[in-house]
Amino acid sequence: MNAPSQRTRRDRALLIVNTGAGKGKSTAAFGMMLRAWARDYRIGVYQFVKSGKWDIGEKRAAEALGGITWESMGDGWTWTSRDLDSSADLAREGWAEVKRRLADHAHDFLLLDEFTYPMTFGWVDTSEVIETLRSRPGFQHVVITGRDAPGELLANADLVTEMTKVKHPFDDGIRGQRGIEW
Amino acid sequence: MNAPSQRTRRDRALLIVNTGAGKGKSTAAFGMMLRAWARDYRIGVYQFVKSGKWDIGEKRAAEALGGITWESMGDGWTWTSRDLDSSADLAREGWAEVKRRLADHAHDFLLLDEFTYPMTFGWVDTSEVIETLRSRPGFQHVVITGRDAPGELLANADLVTEMTKVKHPFDDGIRGQRGIEW
Repeated sequence: MNAPSQRTRRDRALLIVNTGAGKGKSTAAFGMMLRAWARDYRIGVYQFVKSGKWDIGEKRAAEALGGITWESMGDGWTWTSRDLDSSADLAREGWAEVKRRLADHAHDFLLLDEFTYPMTFGWVDTSEVIETLRSRPGFQHVVITGRDAPGELLANADLVTEMTKVKHPFDDGIRGQRGIEW
Repeated sequence: MNAPSQRTRRDRALLIVNTGAGKGKSTAAFGMMLRAWARDYRIGVYQFVKSGKWDIGEKRAAEALGGITWESMGDGWTWTSRDLDSSADLAREGWAEVKRRLADHAHDFLLLDEFTYPMTFGWVDTSEVIETLRSRPGFQHVVITGRDAPGELLANADLVTEMTKVKHPFDDGIRGQRGIEW
C-alpha cells in the first residue's frame, strides 16, 4: 500500500454522508477534497449525475490542483467505450468500477457525488454498497452525497450531516448565479 | 471596475450564510470558492479564527490554485504590524479591513469564515455589518460561516443553509481525522 507518510495509527478511514434538501452537500464534500488533496491523498471523484453542466467549477479547480482522478457519468465515464444509454446502466457501470478501485485501494479519498440517487432508484443495491464499503481494504475515506440517503446507509456511516434549506434565493424568483450555483 | 467578462445582467451578488451546529459550514463555503475561482472571480478569504491550525488544507489548495487573497486572524493579519493581543481587537481589525476592501470592490467573492462569532460576542456590531453589506458597491458575493448566526443577519441573507449534525464520529470517541477534519 502506497500510504502517505504522515499517516499515524490513530487515523481511521471514515464513511461520510452529506444529505438533506439544502445546499452544500456536494460543495462541502469538495471542501473536504481540498483537505485530502493537501495531505497528498490519492483522490478519486465519481459523479453519479447525468449532466456534466453543474460541476464545471470544481472540476476545473481539481484539474488545476492536479493528481485528482475525476470521472463523471455525465461524460459516459472515461474507462468504458460501451454504449450505455440509460442512467440506470451508467450508474451500475460506475458503481462496478468504484468497487474495483476500492478493492485495488486505488484511492485514499473517494467522493461518490450524488450517489444516493442510484440507491434510491434501485439501480444499485444499497445492501451490497454497504457490504462493499464495510469490507473495503486499507485506508479509504469515502464521502457520499445526495438527497434522501437510505437509512441503512446512514446507520453504517461514521459521519452524517444534513443540509437544511433555511432560505434560498430561488424562493424569491432569483435565478441561479454563475460562480455560486455552478 | 475590473469585472469578469462573462458576467451578465441577470447576475446578482448574494449574501450567503452557512450556519448550524453540524459540519460543513466552512467546507461548503470553500467548495463555493472553487466555483468562484473557476469563474476568475477575485477572491478574498478572511478567517476570523484565533488559531491557524485548522485551515491548512484549504489554504494550501488556495495557494496552489493561485490568485486567492487569504488573510487569517490566527496569523495576526498580514496588513497590520500593530500588536493586537485580544481576539476582540483582532476581530475588529479584520472587520475594519474587510469594510475597506468592500468599499474598494477589491474582490468579487468574499468568504468571511467564522465571522458569526465576532458578531455573537459583540466584538463587531451586527447592525453595522448588515448596513455595510447592504450598501456594498458593484458585484460582490459574500459568504459568512459560523454557528449561531444572528437572526438579523439571516433576515438579510439571500441564501441560508443550516448544517445539522446527525451523527459524528466524535460521539463515539473517535478523534478528528487528518485530511478530513483539518
